[in-house]
Order: sequence, then C-alpha cells, then structure tokens
Amino acid sequence: MARTTDPPRDLKKNRMQHFASDNYAGICPEALAALIDANNSGHEPSYGEDSWTQQVCDRIRDLFQTDCEVFFVFNGTAANSLALASLCQSYHSVICHELAHVETDECGGPEFFSGGSKLLTATGANGKLTPDAIEAVVTRRADIHYPKPKVVTLTQSTEVGTVYTVEEVRAIAAIAKRRHLTVHMDGARFANAVASLDVHPSEITWRAGVDVLCFGGTKNGLPVGEAVVFFDKALAADFAYRLKQAGQLASKMRFISAPWLGLLDNDVWLRNARHANAMARLMTERLAGLPGVKVLFETQSNAVFAELPQHVALALRNKGWKFYQFIGSGGCRLMCAWDTKRETVEQFTDEIRTLCAA
Amino acid sequence: MARTTDPPRDLKKNRMQHFASDNYAGICPEALAALIDANNSGHEPSYGEDSWTQQVCDRIRDLFQTDCEVFFVFNGTAANSLALASLCQSYHSVICHELAHVETDECGGPEFFSGGSKLLTATGANGKLTPDAIEAVVTRRADIHYPKPKVVTLTQSTEVGTVYTVEEVRAIAAIAKRRHLTVHMDGARFANAVASLDVHPSEITWRAGVDVLCFGGTKNGLPVGEAVVFFDKALAADFAYRLKQAGQLASKMRFISAPWLGLLDNDVWLRNARHANAMARLMTERLAGLPGVKVLFETQSNAVFAELPQHVALALRNKGWKFYQFIGSGGCRLMCAWDTKRETVEQFTDEIRTLCAA
Amino acid sequence: MARTTDPPRDLKKNRMQHFASDNYAGICPEALAALIDANNSGHEPSYGEDSWTQQVCDRIRDLFQTDCEVFFVFNGTAANSLALASLCQSYHSVICHELAHVETDECGGPEFFSGGSKLLTATGANGKLTPDAIEAVVTRRADIHYPKPKVVTLTQSTEVGTVYTVEEVRAIAAIAKRRHLTVHMDGARFANAVASLDVHPSEITWRAGVDVLCFGGTKNGLPVGEAVVFFDKALAADFAYRLKQAGQLASKMRFISAPWLGLLDNDVWLRNARHANAMARLMTERLAGLPGVKVLFETQSNAVFAELPQHVALALRNKGWKFYQFIGSGGCRLMCAWDTKRETVEQFTDEIRTLCAA
Amino acid sequence: MARTTDPPRDLKKNRMQHFASDNYAGICPEALAALIDANNSGHEPSYGEDSWTQQVCDRIRDLFQTDCEVFFVFNGTAANSLALASLCQSYHSVICHELAHVETDECGGPEFFSGGSKLLTATGANGKLTPDAIEAVVTRRADIHYPKPKVVTLTQSTEVGTVYTVEEVRAIAAIAKRRHLTVHMDGARFANAVASLDVHPSEITWRAGVDVLCFGGTKNGLPVGEAVVFFDKALAADFAYRLKQAGQLASKMRFISAPWLGLLDNDVWLRNARHANAMARLMTERLAGLPGVKVLFETQSNAVFAELPQHVALALRNKGWKFYQFIGSGGCRLMCAWDTKRETVEQFTDEIRTLCAA
Repeated sequence: MARTTDPPRDLKKNRMQHFASDNYAGICPEALAALIDANNSGHEPSYGEDSWTQQVCDRIRDLFQTDCEVFFVFNGTAANSLALASLCQSYHSVICHELAHVETDECGGPEFFSGGSKLLTATGANGKLTPDAIEAVVTRRADIHYPKPKVVTLTQSTEVGTVYTVEEVRAIAAIAKRRHLTVHMDGARFANAVASLDVHPSEITWRAGVDVLCFGGTKNGLPVGEAVVFFDKALAADFAYRLKQAGQLASKMRFISAPWLGLLDNDVWLRNARHANAMARLMTERLAGLPGVKVLFETQSNAVFAELPQHVALALRNKGWKFYQFIGSGGCRLMCAWDTKRETVEQFTDEIRTLCAA
Repeated sequence: MARTTDPPRDLKKNRMQHFASDNYAGICPEALAALIDANNSGHEPSYGEDSWTQQVCDRIRDLFQTDCEVFFVFNGTAANSLALASLCQSYHSVICHELAHVETDECGGPEFFSGGSKLLTATGANGKLTPDAIEAVVTRRADIHYPKPKVVTLTQSTEVGTVYTVEEVRAIAAIAKRRHLTVHMDGARFANAVASLDVHPSEITWRAGVDVLCFGGTKNGLPVGEAVVFFDKALAADFAYRLKQAGQLASKMRFISAPWLGLLDNDVWLRNARHANAMARLMTERLAGLPGVKVLFETQSNAVFAELPQHVALALRNKGWKFYQFIGSGGCRLMCAWDTKRETVEQFTDEIRTLCAA
Repeated sequence: MARTTDPPRDLKKNRMQHFASDNYAGICPEALAALIDANNSGHEPSYGEDSWTQQVCDRIRDLFQTDCEVFFVFNGTAANSLALASLCQSYHSVICHELAHVETDECGGPEFFSGGSKLLTATGANGKLTPDAIEAVVTRRADIHYPKPKVVTLTQSTEVGTVYTVEEVRAIAAIAKRRHLTVHMDGARFANAVASLDVHPSEITWRAGVDVLCFGGTKNGLPVGEAVVFFDKALAADFAYRLKQAGQLASKMRFISAPWLGLLDNDVWLRNARHANAMARLMTERLAGLPGVKVLFETQSNAVFAELPQHVALALRNKGWKFYQFIGSGGCRLMCAWDTKRETVEQFTDEIRTLCAA
Repeated sequence: MARTTDPPRDLKKNRMQHFASDNYAGICPEALAALIDANNSGHEPSYGEDSWTQQVCDRIRDLFQTDCEVFFVFNGTAANSLALASLCQSYHSVICHELAHVETDECGGPEFFSGGSKLLTATGANGKLTPDAIEAVVTRRADIHYPKPKVVTLTQSTEVGTVYTVEEVRAIAAIAKRRHLTVHMDGARFANAVASLDVHPSEITWRAGVDVLCFGGTKNGLPVGEAVVFFDKALAADFAYRLKQAGQLASKMRFISAPWLGLLDNDVWLRNARHANAMARLMTERLAGLPGVKVLFETQSNAVFAELPQHVALALRNKGWKFYQFIGSGGCRLMCAWDTKRETVEQFTDEIRTLCAA
C-alpha cells in the first residue's frame, strides 16, 4: 500500500453514503460487548483451548439441533476454500454456479488450497444451480482427462440476492447423493437466507442434505471470522491440522469465537439479517415504478440488483453514493447491512426518483 | 471440537496461573481502545481501502524510517509462510535454525504455502544461526537433486529467548547477500528484541540487511494479526494477490489494522515488550542460585528456559501452574506477557524456592 | 487396471482401423534407429549429462536459428503445465481458448503444477484466440479478487485442426507484449503447423514473439517425450530444478532425447507431418460433396472434423472403425498420423460414400 | 543446457569406466526386444488402453501372487512422490530414514506432489529404519502444530546397499499398523533386494505388510519407467486421475509397459539383479584386506561403499574412473549394474591394489 496524503480519519466519521457492501459495516454492539467481555476475563489458553470457543461451538450445535464439528476461520475465502479442499483431491472438481463467489472473487483460492481442483461452472436462472444443471455437468465426461466431480457448492443466499427454498436445496442434495457428490454451502449470507425463508436453520442445511456449511459471521456483524460447520463429522477428520497448516488457527482464538455469542444470544444474528433484508425490500418497493428503473431479481435477502438509467447512476456517484455496477450495463448492486438506516434508503431512492424525473 | 461439560466461563476470570505462553494474554487497553474507536467511526470501505489501514501502514513506514510495503495478515503461520513463499519457488529451500518455529510448530505451513519448498535446518548455539552454519548449508550441495537455497530466516527474538545483536544480523545478512539469499526475519517477538537491544527497529532490520520482516502484533497485545513488512519493495510485487488467494485478506480490515495504532501511539509496543522482558529478568534473578534449578539460556527477552527438579515441576503443575516442558528433561519454558504481574512471578518463584528447599 | 480376459496381443497386429488419434501410432523407424543407436553406445552419464542429450539440444537450437534453452519432459501434460507454471504464480491466470487442451483434457494439470493458477477461457472462431478476445479478458477485471493474467497460450496447430498464420501469431504476441503477458505455444502438433504453413519454424515462434514452445515429439513419431524450448532464456532460470522436483527428469535421459535425432536428421519431423497433413487433406477431398457429410473446419493440419449422418457414424463403428465424436451431434474427429496409409483413408471414405448413398 | 563443443558421440562408445550409477547402463536386450516387438504390432489405443499394458499388469499380479492395482510412471521421483501423496494429506507427515532418497535426492518432490507433507527423518544403523525409531517419531508429538505421521517409507534395498530381512519388514509393518501408518516401499532396487534375500517377492511386500511398492524398472534394465503397485487396492482409488494430472500418464503407454515383459519373461529381472549383486560382492571380496581400504556396509545388493585412501581415489579419477564420494571423507559409492563386466571390476580393483601398495 503506497503512502498517501489522505484526510485525517475522523473527518470521515459516519459520513459514508453507500450501498456498496454489507462488509463496510462495523461490529454490532452485542458482538463487540462479547469481545470486550472475553478480554475482561483475563488470560486464557490459546489455539481454541479456551472456554469461550468451547462454549460457542456448543451453542452452534444447539442452534442446528445436531451434533456437528465446528471450526472458526478468519474469513470467507479460507472458510470456503478449506472446506472444499477437505471434500476433494486436486484431481477432482467442484460444481458451482457461474456467478458463485468461489469462481469469480476468490483469486483462485479454492484452486490454491485444494492443490488444483477445477471449478466446473453451470448456469441457472436467478443465480441458482438446479439438479438438471448439476446432472449435466456430472455426466458430461467420464474419462481421466477431466477432473472427476466430487462436490457441489451452493451459495445461500445467492450472489444475486435470491434464496434457495428448502425444496430446492433438498432436490440438489438428492441428485448430489445419487452422483456421490458432497454438498457444500457457502453461507456468507446464511443468516439472510434463514431470515428470508423463516425456517429453522437445520431445514436448509443438514435436514436437507447439506454436508458442510460455511456460516458467515462478518457480514452479519462480527469484526472478523466465519464458522465452518461439518454436519457429516467424518468429513472433519484432521480438519484442525488443515486449518493450522493453512494459517487459519487463531492463537487468541477467543477473540474470534466470543463475538459469536453476541450474535447467538437472543437471536441477534437473525435480527441483524431481518433488518438488512427489510431494508433491501424497502429499497425495492421504493424503486418500483420509477421510469427507467428495473429491479433485476426478486429481492429475497439483503441485496437489490437494479438497472438505473446511466445518467442517474452517474449523478448518484457524483453526489458521493458508492455502489458496484457489474451486471450488464447500468445494473447496480445495492447491498444493505445489519445497520443500514431506513433514512439512508429513503434519501437514496428519493434522489433516484428526482433524477429519473428530471 | 467435541462437546464438553465445561465449567461456566466466568468462574475462570483472572484465575489462570501460568507462564505457558505470551499468547494467553488478552488485548492491551490501547489496542482495544483503537479497535472500538475504529468501530465508532461508522462504515468504511473493505479489504484495506479504509483510512485506518492506510494510516497504520504509514505509521509503520515512519517507525522504520524508510519506504516499505506493509501488509496485514491474521497470524504468524500465515505471515511467515506467505513471506517465505514469496521469496522462493517450490524447488528452492529455506535455511533456518533447527529450533525455528517455522520448522517445528507450523504443521508444514511453509511447505504448504510455497508448494513444497524444503526447510534446511542448521544448528547453532543459543538458538541462533551463524554465518558459518549458513555457509555450510549453502555449499553442501550444488546439484538439481537437492532444492537450491534461496532464503535464510532468522527468529528475533529466538525460540529460546535470546536476541541476535545488530552485528550478528549484519554478519548473517552479509553472507546471505554473497550467496544470493534473501533474509527473512520471523519477528513474532520482534518488539521484545528491540526492547532488549534498545536500538532503533531499523538497526536490526533493513539497515542490517533484512529484506522482509514479519512484525508480530498478537503476542505484543493485539487481538489478532501480524504485519508483513517488505523493505525490499520489489519483493512485494503482487503480494496483495497472494494474500487474497491464501485467505489472508480481511474484509473489515480496519479491525485488524486499527489496533496497531494503539500499539504505535506513544510506543506502547515497546512499553509492553519492556515489561514482558523485565518480568522474565525478574524470574531469572529469583531463580538464580536455587538448588537444582538451572537457567539454560541468557534471559534476553520475555522467555526463561529453566531446568527444574522433576518433583518441583510436578508439584507446580499440581498447584495449577501451567507451562511447557520440552527442552530436555525438566527443561521448562516460562513465558512472560505484556501484562504478566510482578506478584505472579514472585509467587511462582517463591513456590519453587519452597519446593526446592523441601 | 483390472484383470481382463483379453485376446492375446499378436492377433491385433496391424489390424486397428481407426482415425481416433495420432498417438495410436508407433515409433517412426528413424526415431527407433536412433534409440537403438544410443543403446549400442554403452554406458552414459545420467540425468542429461550424456552426449546425446547435449547434441539434441544443440540441434534444436540450430533448427530454430537462435540460442535457446531446451529441456526434455515425458509428455505433453508435463510440458505445458510446467512451462505455464514457470510463467506465473498461483495467484496469476492464463488466457487460453475455450477448446484448448490445457483447459479441457489435462485433468487440472496446469492448476496442479502452478499451485492454483486459473485458466481464463476466451472464445474464437476456428479454435483460435484473437487479439481482441485476449484484450477483453485482460481488461475485464483489475482487482485483487481475480487472478491477474500473466500468460497467453496458443495451440499450434489448434484443437480443431486449424493453424495460426504468422500474422495471427504476431498480432497476438503484440497485444500480449502490450499487456505484459508472456506467450506460450502448445505445440503438441507444432510439426503439422510448420508443414502446413511451409515456413521456417522460427517464423511462428520467437520471430513472431513466442517466449516458450512445447515442441511435441510423441505424435510426430517418438515413443515418448516432448521438448520445452525457452526462447527467452531468462524465463528458464532454475527450470531444471522444477523438472527434477516434478518428476520429469529422466535418469537414462538419452533414451528420451536421442530419438529426436531420428526426427531432426533429414527433416524427418517435417516429412512425417507433411504426410499426416496430406492424409487429412485426402480425407477432406474425398468427403467433399457426399450427401449429409459436412466438413466443419478448414483442413489445415492432420485433423478433419466432419459431421456424418448418425446412421453412417454408427455403421462405421460397427465395422470396427474407431474415432471420436465430441463436437456437436455427429461431429467426428478424424486424426491422421505420420504413418496413416492412403488406402486406409480411401477404404474409410469409400465406406462412408457407400453408406451415405444407401 | 548450454551449447558445448563436445566430442562426437561415437567416440565414447563402450568407453566409460565407472561405478558411478546403475542408471548409466543401457536397456537390457530382452527389454529392448519387447519394445521393438510392441512397435511392430502397429497402432494401439493410447493411455494404457492397449493390450500390452493390460498384459504387463496381469503379469505383475501373477508375479506377486495377489490381486493388486498396477500403474506405470516415468521415473522414481514420480513413483515415490505420487504414491506417498496418495497416502497422506498436506498436513500429514511421512517417516523415512535420514538417508532415504526421498529426503536427500528428490529436490522436494514428495513435498511438492503432496502439497507440503513433511518428511520426518529417523536414524538407524545400516541405512535401515527400526520399529523403535519409528515409534519414537510417532510418539514425539501429538499436537496440531506438528504434521501427523501417516506413512512410513522403507527403501529396499537401502541407500547404502543393505537389505531389510523379511523379519525386519514385518516388524516395521507391525508397528506401522499399530500406529495407523501405511507402509510404502521405495523399490528403485527392489529386484536387487529380492535377489539378495532369495525370497518370493510377495514375502517382503504384501505378505509382510507393505501397502504400496514402487517397483523399479530403470536401474534393472528398462529405458524408462517404474511400476507403482498397490497391494491395498482401496488406496489406489482415483490414482489414475492423480497420474494424469501429475503428467505421468504416457500416451503411447505400451512403450513404457511392454519392456517390462522383457524383464518378467524368464525372470530376467532377477537374473539382471543377481548379476549386479554378484559384481558388487566380487568388488567387496577383492577389496578385502587391501591396506587403507575399508568396506563400510555389508554388501547385500549391488552397491559397495568403501573408504579409499584419498590419494587412491584421486588417482582413480585421474585415470578416468567415475564414482561418487559422499559418505564421510574418502567414502566412495561403487554401484554395479545389470551389465557390469567382471573384468571391469577386476581392472578397477587391480588398480586400487596397485595404488594402495604404492
């Protein structure tokens, strides 16, 4: 990072106007309180031997109503890449949607951690894989010149803000089982999916046939860290060694794990997700019917994808609004976070309304 | 992690009696304050585009009085493994002391991240490499059946609590230069070394010929995170991509970087290190002359290695004291942290005195 | 490989009727004679220190009229994968045609040897990349979440039997240079391309801007082995170590290198390629105008891709003819080898003519 | 390889005077005949689908009197590295003797193919591991900071020319079983061990508890290639994919496999090994009692390790004799091949005798 002549940091306080990413948000108060609490408890054994980590693992088992293996890693790249690496060898392949984060935004992380496993992409409406698409990939080749499919990975909620229904997950897991594939779920925004579907978290995971979940914490209000949850405990054999070798074993692990207590107590994780989802729905409602504006996918979680007239998008940026444009021309991704304010959505959509009318 | 019937966590508060590791300690107040401060500043761009990270990078450049490339990673395994991987290819090798952490305690992390680079170990008194030992390894073989040495890695302070002098680092860097090796410094306890030598940090790094430093933060009072500092900026080419792919790019990076401000402001990092070093010296002083007790290395940083009579070590453990025994029979490693209390050292050494006298 | 009750091998002698692959063919007489000659010369130093290997390297330098680094490996997977691995790091990417062998038929070899480099595919008519297609891939992204393009790889002749012209290679190399990409050529059928274009081999390699060529020997008449030719010698630094580590350093290397003399003496390599090309042209000529038969690509090397009526393809198989069908429905790949007989082509096309007429 | 002004190759014919390596030798007549025979049989399917490969696999199964999985690879680096990689994950470790070829002469091949598995070395007299040495390594550590041992690898015959007895292999396999380690045998000179012990090859492999054997062919008289034999067939799952990805699948595989027929028919492999062993014994007998000469290990296979007076070794070299000196000062490795001539041994030892007397 090169030296800059940046403005002093406190000038920026609370000033960002954006729907760029839910990871621009900070730590939610409950998670921060748990972190501080863990610090106040004094010295603790390292590398996960502390009481906080143990407790959070048990709480996650309780949450999912099943015995499972729980590990904490630092971020989503590591969670997904290491989970996938544990499900296949380098000469195997992983089936994913062509828009999947593991394919488009991990800089080859899954390939690196697996030693070369290829991602085989499939298409599917609304950012979702289908049993037929998976079947087509699995049956395309059966020779040793092509890496053998061993895993299917779903993103829940998806990269375009949609959510797999319980039935959709089950159907995919069924075809996976028949084809001897394990099922991995990239749950960077798992909380948003659970909140959206209003189901028990077990219903879209192990009860539906998911073997491993990467349970996202960062976008839900943690400072850092995701949980890798193996519902099939046999798949977790020696995973602790894998984490250690891969630079994902925190020495002061309680500062990674304890904040989860803040999310889990009183279902803060769901409250945070529901709020973000609600703000996205509000955004969609307020965009509805504006001339030249088109919402591209059903708003089922905390993301809105909308086409805005080019001059509108430009004007918004000039006013300081930040958001990503990357789906088609004019397609904007508008992400809401656990703490996105209603008035920010209103102000943003008001400006769009004005600009569209002009 | 299997479910346990562990005692509730708050019973343990402040109760740990140990010299097991400096990473049992928590977050120092200044680092925690900076973390909270960063959280109070509201939303910020992710992946290091925030103003905090920028600021801390500049502060580290100021600290070292040179332009350098600074990156933040989550832990020491990653810092060292990725730095080493950036200095060699899979068919190269890394020269390290036989006691080096990268050799003995990273579960093959350097080999993993480099794709197979071999660590070639050398011996040396007091846990230190010498120019002659390095020369012997470099000149041992020159055929393609043996991986070509490309890097020498020093641990400062060392695994046995000693510290390389400025002259020693310079001499090693000189032989490395002559043999076309880059010089990497594992500085998990760099602060303790600087505090011990009472020199400017540049004196034992770039001014002495070190190319890359892994600057440890965790053991010095951070919750999580180390800095990788490339003094030879050319060696940092595309290192940001390497971090991303390797699962070491924090999305909410300010929570990894901002706490460094707490350490850097007012030289808290040095104060923390000096305190830990002082506690180790106190330990050594109070162990001196006890019958059956032998301090194994000069106490130059925050570690004391002592042989205790076996019954003494056992009795201490039975009283709840935790520490590691792994050098020879009866050799105990006693680590002091930034917040180790004088009375804990006194209580511990009093108990040893009593036990030895018995 | 499971035990079978296969017919004794000598029954099969000279009986295969096929256009399945040019690697079904055996060793050409000149290559075999050179191998036997090398064996008759008695003991020789191993690992390439023998006089034969030295001589062949020099002959290849002479052939290309330039000083270059030459290495021998066992097969094409290794040649391409190791050459690509030497041109990028794991967090970089390689641009290739979507039909490229490295993408479709190496079971993740490039990803494995590079430690995870991603192949970025581009489309292009006639199996060829274009400068525009490369430009589009290079400029698509410029963030660290996506692996940075560092190499473009061409297959010459291509997977569909076409050949890049000198101008086409130059134009691609020019855009590659501008975008700081190195240029790799997969020349599994390089001889066929040279024979087809009737140019000096330097004209479509280093004189056109190619940095590294994998010069195929096996399909041209060798028993085993390919040459990796670095025209940019700096890129070959420590490549010998890479080969050794990767299991590609032959101990009795003269038996891999010496047969090349058989190919190089008297331009046997070109004669072999010209013959195979001629047989493919003969095939195309005789298929022209047959009802229901459509040749899919211009026949520029030793491959013919043709749509045959489904019942014709089936009947041919029932008669014992072997060939691959994998491009579209009815699309058949018909490969000619260095020793494909004119009468075999005539018999095959006669049968098609009869079947089409029926 | 740089251009040289080497003498023409035919001057060297039959002129090498050496005991440098058994891989300086050429192809034995029977293996060459089989290769030529395979070439005369015309076109054959590629990638091992040919009848020759099938037949050789069956012959190897017959040889070992058990159903097993057989694969062919190009060299010993690949055989051992890929076999080991199939027995462990990157965060596991492999126990080997400190002199093992995989540790000392593969340029990090095992670490590369396994993605970072560490080799843990043990000492042992006569180049042999012992159950106690293995036990000591396995029980040294049991924490996730150190890679978990999963494999023990034996070299048979060993790097110093000794041979494990049936009882020794059984004892090692027993301790391995108890510690949940698989047993790999590096059999680069397996034939020499079988010939030396005069036992059925099954007795020192699967009947003794060996899981995977790398059966060396090159040093026994092949031009190129080794066989990997999985006695525990479950361990061979998807190994064919691993070979393909790793660049070890020969397209014209019959030229790798067929020569094995030459070795297997009429037990040529044993005859070759017996001859080499006999020449080594002759060497040892003739060195016995010479002043200043000391044979370092019992001559049980085709290697003699002898200390020669320094002036003798020098004089021999000056006369053109080639051999390696690498064990201690003056320790010379003298290797005999399948075709080493009795008179060469006699001439060499006569010269030593004369030089020692001088």
